[in-house]
Amino acid sequence: MQKIDVCFSPELLPKYEITDKIVVVVDILRATSCMVTALACGVAQIIPVMEVEECKEWQRKGFLASAERDGKKIEGFDLDNSPFSYQNPDLIGKTIALTTTNGTLAIKKSKDAAQIIIGAFLNISAIVAYLKKENKDILVLCAGWKGKVNLEDTMFAGALVEALQADFDVATDDSLMAQILYNHAKTDMLAVIAKCSHIKRLQNLGIEKDIEFCFQIDKYNVVPMMNGDFLEIVA
Amino acid sequence: MQKIDVCFSPELLPKYEITDKIVVVVDILRATSCMVTALACGVAQIIPVMEVEECKEWQRKGFLASAERDGKKIEGFDLDNSPFSYQNPDLIGKTIALTTTNGTLAIKKSKDAAQIIIGAFLNISAIVAYLKKENKDILVLCAGWKGKVNLEDTMFAGALVEALQADFDVATDDSLMAQILYNHAKTDMLAVIAKCSHIKRLQNLGIEKDIEFCFQIDKYNVVPMMNGDFLEIVA
Repeated sequence: MQKIDVCFSPELLPKYEITDKIVVVVDILRATSCMVTALACGVAQIIPVMEVEECKEWQRKGFLASAERDGKKIEGFDLDNSPFSYQNPDLIGKTIALTTTNGTLAIKKSKDAAQIIIGAFLNISAIVAYLKKENKDILVLCAGWKGKVNLEDTMFAGALVEALQADFDVATDDSLMAQILYNHAKTDMLAVIAKCSHIKRLQNLGIEKDIEFCFQIDKYNVVPMMNGDFLEIVA
Repeated sequence: MQKIDVCFSPELLPKYEITDKIVVVVDILRATSCMVTALACGVAQIIPVMEVEECKEWQRKGFLASAERDGKKIEGFDLDNSPFSYQNPDLIGKTIALTTTNGTLAIKKSKDAAQIIIGAFLNISAIVAYLKKENKDILVLCAGWKGKVNLEDTMFAGALVEALQADFDVATDDSLMAQILYNHAKTDMLAVIAKCSHIKRLQNLGIEKDIEFCFQIDKYNVVPMMNGDFLEIVA
């Protein structure tokens, strides 16, 4: 039986062997929720980059570019880190370079994986169906917050473990911990995360609408996957 | 109000500022449970060391020495990593050099902390009383397993958060996650950890008796603290 593991922070990724695994990168608030939204709404490709300067380079080459640090848009870029910004029909068919505090770093650190796919509550059933079909070992990589763990990414990881437990071996401490956290929170995830300092910090930015949006289940039926430098829909 | 944080793995410790904090190091199975048992049973001092060779050095100088890797005693050393080995009256007043896979590493990595104290379920109420009295910021450092998270250390961290929540700020994601995990497991911790691969690995070593022992609450009323290179009872 193939297995599913959960890595609680990109800082712990070197402790996991990923070359033969599908890595599911998750940054619920808000990088991977934005990526899923963008691609589901018609954006052709996303180019996740680690550095702001690199993102600027893509912009100079004529691409749209989005750069966020500490939850805020950096001046001079075309788009911020709100999922509502990516539902704009003007973006259909476009390619967007994107850098965020945690999410794009997690993607870049996963470069040795067999496949990198992008998960969010917005597309969780599409991800589950894809992972069952592929039947490879899985590592869910929580982007966290500046190297620390966070609750919403771990809850998403636990939701995947819960959905895949009949088909995958889920016996490791990390996957069981994530599953317990998800089952504790699942009936009212927004209420549970409302207690966290991380969320309070985001709420101070006035993004309550974004947070509610990012906790919608199965709004989109897409599986975004990294293909070289580009993130595209594969299923 | 002072605050309490939980670091899920020694690998994440660089993400936390600890110079003004009390770091509570926990390695339930079995390093910190052994240390608490040893000191409570009359051992004068423990010298936690990172490397096996360094432990051997102390032995050559005439000290008792204990070295464990991957759950097993290394040949040529005086003591293994079972809490029962430290209840021997012959050890009263002795000093023991000790190295383990995860626990002693976590202690050494915490060297910049204001204070380092050693926690286990065996002395949890003594730790809680001490932390309330000191009223400093706290970081609970889970030793984990080779850099990965584990359930039993996180549950202990959550038990501390639960016990201290009236007196300390517990709003960070890490402390809330640990608290949720503890509250899920507290009525039957042994049954919950029995599902984990980490425990199965330890059970294969034939240490079920040790595991049961380490989950006893408040068997001992001691607070061990690092004083330079030495771990001693301070309260």
